[in-house]
Amino acid sequence: MEKGSGSPAAGGSCPQKNAEILSSQYGINLFLAGLLLTFAWAVHAVGISKSHLLSYLITLMFIQLLWMLWYLCRSCTQRRLIRDKDTHAGARWLKCGITLFAVITLILDSFKVGYYIDFSNCLSPTEGIFPVTHAAHTILQVYFLWCHAKDIIQSFKTLERFGVIHSVFTNLLLWTNGVLTESKHQLNEHKERLITLGFGNITIVLDDHAPQCNCTTTTLCSIFSQGIYYLYPFNIEYHILASTMLYVLWKNIGRKVEHHQQHKTPFKFHGITVGMIFGLIVLTSTIAVVVVYLIQIGRSKVKSELALTMFYLHAIFVLALMCTAGVVALLIYRLEDRSLDNSKNPARKLDAELLVGTAAGSWLLSWGSILAIICAQAHPKYTWYNLPYSVLVIIEKYIQNLFIIESIHREQEKANDDIKTLRIVTISRGSTLSLTPSYKEIYNGRATCDIGELPCLVSSSICARESDGGGSANKETNQGNSPVMHSASEFSFYSRSSVADNKRRILKNIAAFLFLCNLSLWIPPAFGCRPEYDNGLEEIVFGFEPWIIVVNLAMPFSIFYRMHSAASLFEVNCKT
Amino acid sequence: MEKGSGSPAAGGSCPQKNAEILSSQYGINLFLAGLLLTFAWAVHAVGISKSHLLSYLITLMFIQLLWMLWYLCRSCTQRRLIRDKDTHAGARWLKCGITLFAVITLILDSFKVGYYIDFSNCLSPTEGIFPVTHAAHTILQVYFLWCHAKDIIQSFKTLERFGVIHSVFTNLLLWTNGVLTESKHQLNEHKERLITLGFGNITIVLDDHAPQCNCTTTTLCSIFSQGIYYLYPFNIEYHILASTMLYVLWKNIGRKVEHHQQHKTPFKFHGITVGMIFGLIVLTSTIAVVVVYLIQIGRSKVKSELALTMFYLHAIFVLALMCTAGVVALLIYRLEDRSLDNSKNPARKLDAELLVGTAAGSWLLSWGSILAIICAQAHPKYTWYNLPYSVLVIIEKYIQNLFIIESIHREQEKANDDIKTLRIVTISRGSTLSLTPSYKEIYNGRATCDIGELPCLVSSSICARESDGGGSANKETNQGNSPVMHSASEFSFYSRSSVADNKRRILKNIAAFLFLCNLSLWIPPAFGCRPEYDNGLEEIVFGFEPWIIVVNLAMPFSIFYRMHSAASLFEVNCKT
Repeated sequence: MEKGSGSPAAGGSCPQKNAEILSSQYGINLFLAGLLLTFAWAVHAVGISKSHLLSYLITLMFIQLLWMLWYLCRSCTQRRLIRDKDTHAGARWLKCGITLFAVITLILDSFKVGYYIDFSNCLSPTEGIFPVTHAAHTILQVYFLWCHAKDIIQSFKTLERFGVIHSVFTNLLLWTNGVLTESKHQLNEHKERLITLGFGNITIVLDDHAPQCNCTTTTLCSIFSQGIYYLYPFNIEYHILASTMLYVLWKNIGRKVEHHQQHKTPFKFHGITVGMIFGLIVLTSTIAVVVVYLIQIGRSKVKSELALTMFYLHAIFVLALMCTAGVVALLIYRLEDRSLDNSKNPARKLDAELLVGTAAGSWLLSWGSILAIICAQAHPKYTWYNLPYSVLVIIEKYIQNLFIIESIHREQEKANDDIKTLRIVTISRGSTLSLTPSYKEIYNGRATCDIGELPCLVSSSICARESDGGGSANKETNQGNSPVMHSASEFSFYSRSSVADNKRRILKNIAAFLFLCNLSLWIPPAFGCRPEYDNGLEEIVFGFEPWIIVVNLAMPFSIFYRMHSAASLFEVNCKT
Repeated sequence: MEKGSGSPAAGGSCPQKNAEILSSQYGINLFLAGLLLTFAWAVHAVGISKSHLLSYLITLMFIQLLWMLWYLCRSCTQRRLIRDKDTHAGARWLKCGITLFAVITLILDSFKVGYYIDFSNCLSPTEGIFPVTHAAHTILQVYFLWCHAKDIIQSFKTLERFGVIHSVFTNLLLWTNGVLTESKHQLNEHKERLITLGFGNITIVLDDHAPQCNCTTTTLCSIFSQGIYYLYPFNIEYHILASTMLYVLWKNIGRKVEHHQQHKTPFKFHGITVGMIFGLIVLTSTIAVVVVYLIQIGRSKVKSELALTMFYLHAIFVLALMCTAGVVALLIYRLEDRSLDNSKNPARKLDAELLVGTAAGSWLLSWGSILAIICAQAHPKYTWYNLPYSVLVIIEKYIQNLFIIESIHREQEKANDDIKTLRIVTISRGSTLSLTPSYKEIYNGRATCDIGELPCLVSSSICARESDGGGSANKETNQGNSPVMHSASEFSFYSRSSVADNKRRILKNIAAFLFLCNLSLWIPPAFGCRPEYDNGLEEIVFGFEPWIIVVNLAMPFSIFYRMHSAASLFEVNCKT
């Protein structure tokens, strides 16, 4: 395509495969070194302070900034060249989502700068440089992703591969850093609650709680230090999203794509009212529950138990609804046996892997709870709600993953199927209508239109001959094995499209409902509503330290799962 | 193919994709529940004992046994049906390797039974049932893998998918269990050494050290309890190998393969003498170093330091040699620009992913050491050897992975290339020789034969006209872009094949040398030679507990890497 590519027609060339492994190994080492630094900071290693870690992160961000500037300049100067684009990568709503998170991240950065100014006497300069660099990094990265997330890079493969993988792992490290800060904060809050409740048997040491000096402007200080922790969840989501988008960009380097028509599928509120209403009810009730929970928990033993009971009952109800919705959707899919689109698509493959991979985080926690309930010697009443809750968490994610992965793999060419049916109908009837070609043109032009709104010409001519319900005939049409059609199926077209339309509407509503439910379920863990801590049962069975480690390792994935499945369900809604 | 399949011609069917996700999620949950039980046992959770874990493992093995029997019976009764086979999966040497490990695992099981009989007063019955079940499981599984590792299952997809994924994760859990037992043992030995050296500042509690009752037959007891720990490394390798083979079987379910000719590439000792000799020198010296290390370490401070110094110097020397060999091999690859075989091949893909993934384990440890050396306040002299050692570990795996992955992706059809050259030579010369077809037949029949041993007819007719060295012409022939050939290249065929033959011989020697080096480097960590513990520096910087956790998590992958890369290098040797 451009100079320096020279890729052979068949099979990949050695330098390309080499560049892939070279760069991925570089990225992994970059990440591991940063991970060790983060770990060292977390365990208060001798001789390693937070400023070392921040310096490392600043360096990485700076290199990425330089690389992005180079890339942007190069693509500006070479604008004339036609570039391949991966139509599946970097969807518009994904870009909008990341922009929203980035804006909140910028607010977080400004808060951090303010915090640094307030405590500048006792904080190292890196704590001031870090948010400034981070803000610049965020702005340029969002611009970069808006312009180049769909790129399929074909030239200068090695340098570009290194730059992209560097960006992927820089974002992953920033994510890790955010997760750790957030976990430390949650753990401190939990420990403070334990102190309030009078548990003296645990060695409680508050970790990185507050700087060693006084604030210069007392009023702003508490706003900054409190506000930061409400903004962290968005910062965390921003980095993991950026990381996945960049990873797809990396996987796309040197790829060859077949150009096929891209269906623009804009999001429409029309036709998903029921799903939206139920979803919004769940969303508002969840927010109410979280607020009550955070106010009540840790006040006294009775109030804590009440808060936990309320939380569990609410969650059990929501999860049961979600399971039901998921099962209904899967049953609808089983009724219509359609083939899957198995073409190569890195964005979709990553989506599916992330869904199953990150669900494992919350499954681990749930199995921990189940084990704890089975093995515990004493069972306060409220702990029993934990059992159905944990079981439902496992089942709900199981079903939801099945639904999402099947949805994103289904072939979108709904129109073609129906045209085929129509053709067969007209041919088998041996009629002289000969409207097939003209209808096909009309139909292809508006591929996403409702099948219910058939052109009057066609629908009337077929409807007139409609005789029986298309239930059994429907199955036969779908099998597609026998070229010879039964005479019963001749007349089933209208009723079939009506049934399909109904199915589609149900699926859209379910996707919308599940989308809002997943957004709702993202809120409690992201904003510090963690029954895994407050419940106490697991801590007694596994021990305080081991269980805290498990929760802190698994929780980030569990939180990410909710945001990621919400994003996937939004896509499902658009596609259905 | 058989009943119940009904796969459509284009794209996968929904039930198949569904079965894939259903089964993988089932497997992950199975694994996570087991992992939590193992974790609970490791941290001495209240109410969870070893017998709970063993009962769970016994149940899983029993289910797998039933499934394997069902599968074997079914394939016996339906022997007439022609089954697809994946020629890349389950290579003969892999089967031989797993059989060897399985035999040692059976010895381990018999030792465990003996140990149980000796201490039967104070051990739970599960500790006796476990090795018996495990032995039966091992025998049947090896038989199963010998007969069916290459199968591409097309029928009853759901039940077979569940069975295979169940087997994969059962083996992974048994691997985890083995790894944990081994880690506990190593940690106990380390703590005993620390006690000997008089370190009282660490809270030392020996974990699961010995049963609470006396042995019935004292002489056998120590043999059993000592012997078990020398056999564990083989047991661990057995399970991880079985797990990967079963995973490939799972990935192959429902796949469609293009039948292409399978090149039988038997292993030959001929022509790799130099590599073998150097490799055997490394192997024997490593064994000697390990024996001296294990005798000396922990005796006194001076002896420990001497042992560490000896270990590091030896490892630095070996790793430097391996790096050099790897670089030479990569340079040779860069000289001949051949295209890669990018066809779908689950076994190869898994190999590449495992190489990079498991290398990350040892990279993590190395980065930990590097960080510790940089940040430590005091540096005893021997700790400085740790720095080049850690850096070399990173670089060596980096280079070796590049070499192996490129090697297993190179197209094997060497013959075709040469035939093309020969054809062009004869055509461009415009001669009336017309021996191309007959030569091609001869050549295809012996695709792996040395190019140096050309049939006399051809070589003589070309050699006669040979005028100059084929150095520059060689490159031109390889470019393959211009259909018009230079006249200089006419005569380069003989010298070219001679150069290629030399390159091939060097590559084979390097692969053999690296194979033996990797086997050698597997021995020290597998048999308890762990400078990461004994060095002391990392423990001081990170703290005893955190560093022990990192080592115990990363070490199993590091050990597996060596065995896996040795297996891959064996394959490279056969293919080259």
